[in-house]
Amino acid sequence: MISVQEASVLIQKATQKFSDETVSFLESQDRVLKEAILADTDFPPFDRVCMDGIAISKKQFDAGKRSFAIEGVQAAGSPQKTLKNSESCLEVMTGAILPKNTDAVIPYELVAIENGNATVNLDEVKELQNIHLQGRDRAKGEIVIEKNTLVTPAEIGVLATVGKAKVKVVGQPKILIVSTGNELVEVTETPLAPQIRRSNVYSLISLLKRLSIEADTRHLTDDKENLKRQIQTYLETYDVLLFSGAVSKGKFDFLPEVLEELGVEKLFHKVKQRPGKPFWFGQRASVEVSGVENKTTIFAFPGNPVSTYVNCLKYFYPWYQKSIGIAATKETAVLSVDFNFKPSMTYFLQVKLENKAGALVAIPQIGNGSGDLTNLVDADAFLELPADKTEFKKGEFYPILRYRTF
Amino acid sequence: MISVQEASVLIQKATQKFSDETVSFLESQDRVLKEAILADTDFPPFDRVCMDGIAISKKQFDAGKRSFAIEGVQAAGSPQKTLKNSESCLEVMTGAILPKNTDAVIPYELVAIENGNATVNLDEVKELQNIHLQGRDRAKGEIVIEKNTLVTPAEIGVLATVGKAKVKVVGQPKILIVSTGNELVEVTETPLAPQIRRSNVYSLISLLKRLSIEADTRHLTDDKENLKRQIQTYLETYDVLLFSGAVSKGKFDFLPEVLEELGVEKLFHKVKQRPGKPFWFGQRASVEVSGVENKTTIFAFPGNPVSTYVNCLKYFYPWYQKSIGIAATKETAVLSVDFNFKPSMTYFLQVKLENKAGALVAIPQIGNGSGDLTNLVDADAFLELPADKTEFKKGEFYPILRYRTF
Repeated sequence: MISVQEASVLIQKATQKFSDETVSFLESQDRVLKEAILADTDFPPFDRVCMDGIAISKKQFDAGKRSFAIEGVQAAGSPQKTLKNSESCLEVMTGAILPKNTDAVIPYELVAIENGNATVNLDEVKELQNIHLQGRDRAKGEIVIEKNTLVTPAEIGVLATVGKAKVKVVGQPKILIVSTGNELVEVTETPLAPQIRRSNVYSLISLLKRLSIEADTRHLTDDKENLKRQIQTYLETYDVLLFSGAVSKGKFDFLPEVLEELGVEKLFHKVKQRPGKPFWFGQRASVEVSGVENKTTIFAFPGNPVSTYVNCLKYFYPWYQKSIGIAATKETAVLSVDFNFKPSMTYFLQVKLENKAGALVAIPQIGNGSGDLTNLVDADAFLELPADKTEFKKGEFYPILRYRTF
Repeated sequence: MISVQEASVLIQKATQKFSDETVSFLESQDRVLKEAILADTDFPPFDRVCMDGIAISKKQFDAGKRSFAIEGVQAAGSPQKTLKNSESCLEVMTGAILPKNTDAVIPYELVAIENGNATVNLDEVKELQNIHLQGRDRAKGEIVIEKNTLVTPAEIGVLATVGKAKVKVVGQPKILIVSTGNELVEVTETPLAPQIRRSNVYSLISLLKRLSIEADTRHLTDDKENLKRQIQTYLETYDVLLFSGAVSKGKFDFLPEVLEELGVEKLFHKVKQRPGKPFWFGQRASVEVSGVENKTTIFAFPGNPVSTYVNCLKYFYPWYQKSIGIAATKETAVLSVDFNFKPSMTYFLQVKLENKAGALVAIPQIGNGSGDLTNLVDADAFLELPADKTEFKKGEFYPILRYRTF
């Protein structure tokens, strides 16, 4: 049995490359850019007025002039005007080009306008005040968004600004989620006495949707020959298989042997952790199909709902993040009370999170063991308590795997 | 001019009610439940085996018995078996019903099986060990998810478990995002000298998509009669209008007067904040249309990209969250360095966030003022520095408006 750290290292070594795709810029939200985005022009593209008011020649102001005849209006979106008489002014609107022969903007708040004259009562006007100079934010050709950036609403605005209507992002892997177990029935069915409904596949679908992945799903009964036949076809079709169940010591836990018989290399089976000990991980080496390399990575999670859930967050998420070229999520939280866990394995403690005075505080939620899915509803995250300690003190901080934000 | 606090109070008083809708449980992700979810049966629904191993009668063990003839196998999903001879055992699989006449499960790890006999070498067997008792997590009819819960992958799993294939959630408001300004051209166009591309509407679309809202969008030129005619129709069709631009002191900033002429009640105009001072907020009272009440709430944000962006996070987000029945996002972060801001107004400082030892640290990103959209790309959040102070010290914590997670 290996440690959580060893398991993580093996998983991080087994990342995959997914081909890029081009999407409309609005569809790139929550995806990862596979090109650097450049300024298509200077930003701002011209000397831009920042306040509604009047534009003047500072030289005239410095020479003592305080009243300016209004020559006209420079509106946003209109061609650049020219101040004809340097002793006059032009009214200017936010977003407009600065008129020729002007070099300072005085906001309306500081101007009295009467009979076509604008009068100011000021001691000083600063050079280029209220003017956003051409190229001040970015020069044409400069990078505005780095490659490998996860697109948020901030990037969407910038993509629009530079006219990047279509953009290259990482393509999504083809993922199949497979549940196993004869006791499982569909959500719409009423279980008989020994049955329960399928739920893990739906938690996984939902966890993957968070990563903008639309996964397929199947159910297989505990029949070794059938498992083998079906998984063979899955391996040919999918980049990633996520299993839930059939990896422990049960008489019908055929998955590890079936996967190995199908040529999948086992990278490990069983991790010193609770919940989720019987986790199995492997990869089928590339088989060239018409010149294109392909690989299938298999995460076979234990069937307990909380095991599947925490293992997906702990192992699949960072594997996927590294595969698409972004840093893994890393957050820590401060334990709110003392907590003990004796076994020499990593413990994923269900916690509620509170943000207090800039700190993230983790409050343990004691459930009924790994089978208790309902307890996930009362928690926000798992606090990862390391295997080499048994006593965890209030005020100490540990990594969290978070599935709920404030 | 009112304070940020006063503006927030007025906005929170002006929430709206959206009608509920029923969706498939998988579609309820990131939506808010409008019904409490009940356990449709006990959870677990039967005394459930938690480990692969053997089930025995504890009385026999206590009487000294250590070797048990194997009567058969109790698989998961199979009808309950009965241990016929109390001195024997049944092999049991995780997820199976506990066989009749047994009351303890010993995992395979602690059992030696030979010639149809299971032998254990243990001093003690605990009553009901490795058995998840019927109803232990929830009794039939108990609440498993409270009303007004925001659905995460955890709730998706529970909805599947209790067979809630369809679920009642808050319906989404119909929202229109309107840009104004003659200087704006489409993303696919190349701007002429005085023009720039529309970007605020796309940032807003993207910020609303985060709330699972699909908004419509329009552009209006700075023509008062046209504005009035179009907005009249928008008021009849939409629950919420988000504007960007035309609310300041410019000669073509017709929006406030047009909205008031159309019967929209101004709740405030201008807030002591930077960026985003000219923010206008109002509501058109309910007009009964064929017996159904309707209202339209109008957020008219200033046209600067960063103003629109921060105002949406600061005002629209909490308004929407209160309207749908959930608590507003509230997070704070610790300032990494001293920072000064003189004007007596709230300052939304762009910051990068780091999680260090369980604390959230805010590192100021100094940009080029409210027009610099590109700076949003380098930041993760806004730190809200209150108006009643001018000096902000390293180590102090303030609220954040976050748009990027780790």
